[in-house]
Amino acid sequence: MTIQIFDLACRDERIYFSPYCWRTRMALKHKGLEFESLPWHFTDKDKIERTGEGRVPVIIDGETWVNESSEIAIYLDQAYPERPPLMKDAAARATARFIDAWCTTSVFPALRPICVLDVYKIIIDRDRDYFRSSREKMLGARLEDLSTDPEAERAVLNRTLRPMNEMLAHYPFLGGDEPTYADYVLFGTLMWADTVCPQNPIDPATHVAAWFDRLLDIYDGFARKTPRARD
Amino acid sequence: MTIQIFDLACRDERIYFSPYCWRTRMALKHKGLEFESLPWHFTDKDKIERTGEGRVPVIIDGETWVNESSEIAIYLDQAYPERPPLMKDAAARATARFIDAWCTTSVFPALRPICVLDVYKIIIDRDRDYFRSSREKMLGARLEDLSTDPEAERAVLNRTLRPMNEMLAHYPFLGGDEPTYADYVLFGTLMWADTVCPQNPIDPATHVAAWFDRLLDIYDGFARKTPRARD
Repeated sequence: MTIQIFDLACRDERIYFSPYCWRTRMALKHKGLEFESLPWHFTDKDKIERTGEGRVPVIIDGETWVNESSEIAIYLDQAYPERPPLMKDAAARATARFIDAWCTTSVFPALRPICVLDVYKIIIDRDRDYFRSSREKMLGARLEDLSTDPEAERAVLNRTLRPMNEMLAHYPFLGGDEPTYADYVLFGTLMWADTVCPQNPIDPATHVAAWFDRLLDIYDGFARKTPRARD
Repeated sequence: MTIQIFDLACRDERIYFSPYCWRTRMALKHKGLEFESLPWHFTDKDKIERTGEGRVPVIIDGETWVNESSEIAIYLDQAYPERPPLMKDAAARATARFIDAWCTTSVFPALRPICVLDVYKIIIDRDRDYFRSSREKMLGARLEDLSTDPEAERAVLNRTLRPMNEMLAHYPFLGGDEPTYADYVLFGTLMWADTVCPQNPIDPATHVAAWFDRLLDIYDGFARKTPRARD
């Protein structure tokens, strides 16, 4: 049975840009599970009311609803143990949690000045007031004032990614030879910029850029083929 | 046969404080290997000349010399496969490399203002000129000027440790249920402060403090029993 995913959408409902939804999209591809996206907008809180949270991703798998991307990844491994594991043991789950928290504390703060205004430009009209007021409150600045020096902001992002870059000098993925859920956590985070921004801010000369390319290519180019706002 | 480790020492040669040597010390305990420390000082470059590097840890295992803490950990797993693995697969090695690079880019910069002057105070006289000039050049400030607001510096350190703290809300170690080399990489880094500073700067209310305590306790309290400069 096809899994359904409430997936954050734009005016153009072919474009999916949520970093958390991208984690789940890649997780579903990794497990080889069929899924379809249900376009969801920030002001569609009522559609996912039964989760008790106002955020996506939320998946519906038969009778089961699961929300929050980390919980969805754990659920998929439990519900489909015969398929390739996203996290094969507690060490892999701990690593994915660490990378998730590192994204929260380090990578997202570096991405926000780069991405947030571009998100605002592509979402549907009825989402805009909510998005502007919630983000301006969180970030303490007008959306239009978040980015002041794009080149410096890209430099901060690439400096923030240095631990990943150093690791990738030795191994192709956080999972070692193959991607694991920890890879998708960071990849999804960076897909935020790749889907909404005029250009991908990752320094193309880095190992991170090569790793990002590898993950654009896997699953028959699933992530590479997704429409971008810049297209 | 007992492995020997060139181990960075103070005036008081019972005190070992090098964060990189502590990674190796914990790795050797994890593998259950007997070892003895050869007290080494910054100006003892000639003793380890054959490694082509001027840094410790360096281990001597029979006829084999191995330097650089990451390489030593990989060597120990290869040379002693019948003993508990430090990193059981490529995913564990990739995670350890990531944590190592995260320490380099984030944790050490937060620790330096807290630790460096305390190191200077406890090393032997003939190491002091080398230590002062190399560190002042690296850090662009006099050792006495590195710390300006100890409370703020501890706050920065604990904020830097947030990804670890968040992960530890879910799992007891980066290795999941048991420590793996990635745990020792961060633990060794933090032992720098615990061995040289008047007080450990980790916020005692955090999961990181509880995890640090667990690692002080393992191997019959090996790290807890080591002499500190403050004793």
